[in-house]
Amino acid sequence: MTAAPRIGAGADRLAALDRRFLARAVELGRGGWGRVHPNPMVGAVVARDGTVLGEARHEEFGGPHAEAAALAGLGERARGATLYASLEPCRHTGKTPPCTEAIHRAGVARTVFWAAEPGAEAGGGGKWLRRRGVRVDGPFGDRADWAAENPVFFHRAAGSRPYVALKLAVSLDGRIAPGGGRRVWLTGAEARAEVHRLRAGFDAILVGTRTWKSDDPLLTARGAVKPRVPPVPVLLDRRGEATAGLRALNGDVGGRAIVVAASDAAGGLERRLAGRAEVAAVPVTRRGLDLAAALGGLVERGVGSVLCEGGGVLAASLLTGRLVDRLYLFVAPVVIGEGGVPAFPHAAGTIPGARTPPAGGWQARLDPVRFGSDTLIVLDRGG
Amino acid sequence: MTAAPRIGAGADRLAALDRRFLARAVELGRGGWGRVHPNPMVGAVVARDGTVLGEARHEEFGGPHAEAAALAGLGERARGATLYASLEPCRHTGKTPPCTEAIHRAGVARTVFWAAEPGAEAGGGGKWLRRRGVRVDGPFGDRADWAAENPVFFHRAAGSRPYVALKLAVSLDGRIAPGGGRRVWLTGAEARAEVHRLRAGFDAILVGTRTWKSDDPLLTARGAVKPRVPPVPVLLDRRGEATAGLRALNGDVGGRAIVVAASDAAGGLERRLAGRAEVAAVPVTRRGLDLAAALGGLVERGVGSVLCEGGGVLAASLLTGRLVDRLYLFVAPVVIGEGGVPAFPHAAGTIPGARTPPAGGWQARLDPVRFGSDTLIVLDRGG
Repeated sequence: MTAAPRIGAGADRLAALDRRFLARAVELGRGGWGRVHPNPMVGAVVARDGTVLGEARHEEFGGPHAEAAALAGLGERARGATLYASLEPCRHTGKTPPCTEAIHRAGVARTVFWAAEPGAEAGGGGKWLRRRGVRVDGPFGDRADWAAENPVFFHRAAGSRPYVALKLAVSLDGRIAPGGGRRVWLTGAEARAEVHRLRAGFDAILVGTRTWKSDDPLLTARGAVKPRVPPVPVLLDRRGEATAGLRALNGDVGGRAIVVAASDAAGGLERRLAGRAEVAAVPVTRRGLDLAAALGGLVERGVGSVLCEGGGVLAASLLTGRLVDRLYLFVAPVVIGEGGVPAFPHAAGTIPGARTPPAGGWQARLDPVRFGSDTLIVLDRGG
Repeated sequence: MTAAPRIGAGADRLAALDRRFLARAVELGRGGWGRVHPNPMVGAVVARDGTVLGEARHEEFGGPHAEAAALAGLGERARGATLYASLEPCRHTGKTPPCTEAIHRAGVARTVFWAAEPGAEAGGGGKWLRRRGVRVDGPFGDRADWAAENPVFFHRAAGSRPYVALKLAVSLDGRIAPGGGRRVWLTGAEARAEVHRLRAGFDAILVGTRTWKSDDPLLTARGAVKPRVPPVPVLLDRRGEATAGLRALNGDVGGRAIVVAASDAAGGLERRLAGRAEVAAVPVTRRGLDLAAALGGLVERGVGSVLCEGGGVLAASLLTGRLVDRLYLFVAPVVIGEGGVPAFPHAAGTIPGARTPPAGGWQARLDPVRFGSDTLIVLDRGG
């Protein structure tokens, strides 16, 4: 994401300069993608009289929090300054001391924060600072705004199933491929590099049977961001046809891999893969593998977020089953035509002929981004 | 457009601060949309040591040019400063004195400009300044980049047919409406306001027969930008069925209107409309009105740019006829389904099954913009 963040409701209470620094803090935080998970991405700016004194992000899980890092080295210069943070400063001691104490000790006169800290343990930092005489403004926007920036973090705090994102590359007419099983690159190199960057922020990358059979993909994050923990490749394999030689099961990062098979095929598969991958057994519905059960099984294996990358059958099943939290839609400036494979099956969550976008439909909360001639539209499931 | 402009090839020769001020000049220029035509949109920034001393845009046709306006009132402070302009400073006397002289007289030490001035009369400003000892950097990017920002201006300098933009509001699956002739609002209020802003920058708004018959639209620009010259409503009307009472022919701005009819229907129509609109007679092909001839006829009537707004039949004919220079594609986060009306007929300019985006396809040169939950993708016809 390079487009400007959306501060959301209530921000009109802030001066323009405050909004700018708060947006800058959110933007800084984005740089932690793939490195800070399971922590949230957080950025912070220290400023006085319109001048930035320090800025930082939470760079790495286990490393300093953004607020402490932005204050570090400022010494007496921080006294009386304003600290802007994209998340409410934490007031608990985890891998690092509480940020609230660092802020108070530095003599910061005012703290402006964007998202409320949802954790019972870490939350309440704003209140803590107020009690100690720091002027505190925040939160701004609502949970849906914050979740758009830190989707996995806010999902984890709320739900029991993994956060599910679906990546689709579509033509202007909403097709993912020509007919007849032919495969094409719809998007250009810049868009494909962005997919590798996105992969770094997920616990797992999931593909359907046809995709691994035809492409034998590596399913690693080979982009600008090296993930702190490499995503786990997950292959759907109803009939238990996977073989130990598949590239996704032999990643050079030496990580895990998971193959999801129908219960009646799982035993034989496990023997054949001989430890090359974990095998998850799930029931079968009349449409194929029970995807809801498959996703539930991933949570049990510590997978809190999944990026689903295709193919068309998987995408259609996930959309029809309303199992998708976020759509990363790369729109390529080409037309495939009526014979092509549609990305959106008929009943994919909106009402044909609706006069207005229906409640529960998709919402764009992040700004679109251009990659070469392709456009990335990020759509989050509506409330 | 609110997204950052693209400076293009060669800009890596510039320092980061230079690029920022040049991008700011382009961004400033955009505010002249609907007010400066037939002049180009131009912005200018005067800066020294990283500090902005003055900035301005060409606000209004006939009014001061951006460069002169940015220098105005700076007096001796401009001496030794750098002037950034989105277009090469003009060196001819039109409604205002040459900008080159204003720059030279102010003692500006360096001029950085983005687009080359294409006019034989006004061009050569960079060379003129260099000869007088001003350091000059520019142009940057190429004609396609410049035309993306000032499409009508650069089209006019090149071609004989009008600049044709097609506005489409599509669903995620590339449909413009459900089947069966039902009509829906796909996009939200913010996107529709942007359409009114866009209208202000065109000489004419064109709609097909079904649209004016079913909607009786006003076809005026009722948005944030009041056009200096209101766009002329143009109705396609093969059979000469328009009536004097249509709202588009009775605009409260008291402007012109044009009805395009088949040659055999034009005479009767002209009598019936009794001066309420100009009637343009064009030949008929086996697909209906000859659109290329219709567009040619508009040039003869002083219409240099047309925004085509529908409906589906017109859009399909324009795309199939390769008559569209720019697509304003508003993508709504809804799915209509396979029964819907496709925005892109089969042979709309790209090759089904192509392995890479084909030459001559669409290119995104401007960044996409979000309006509420809708996304505007601007696509220009490839070279």
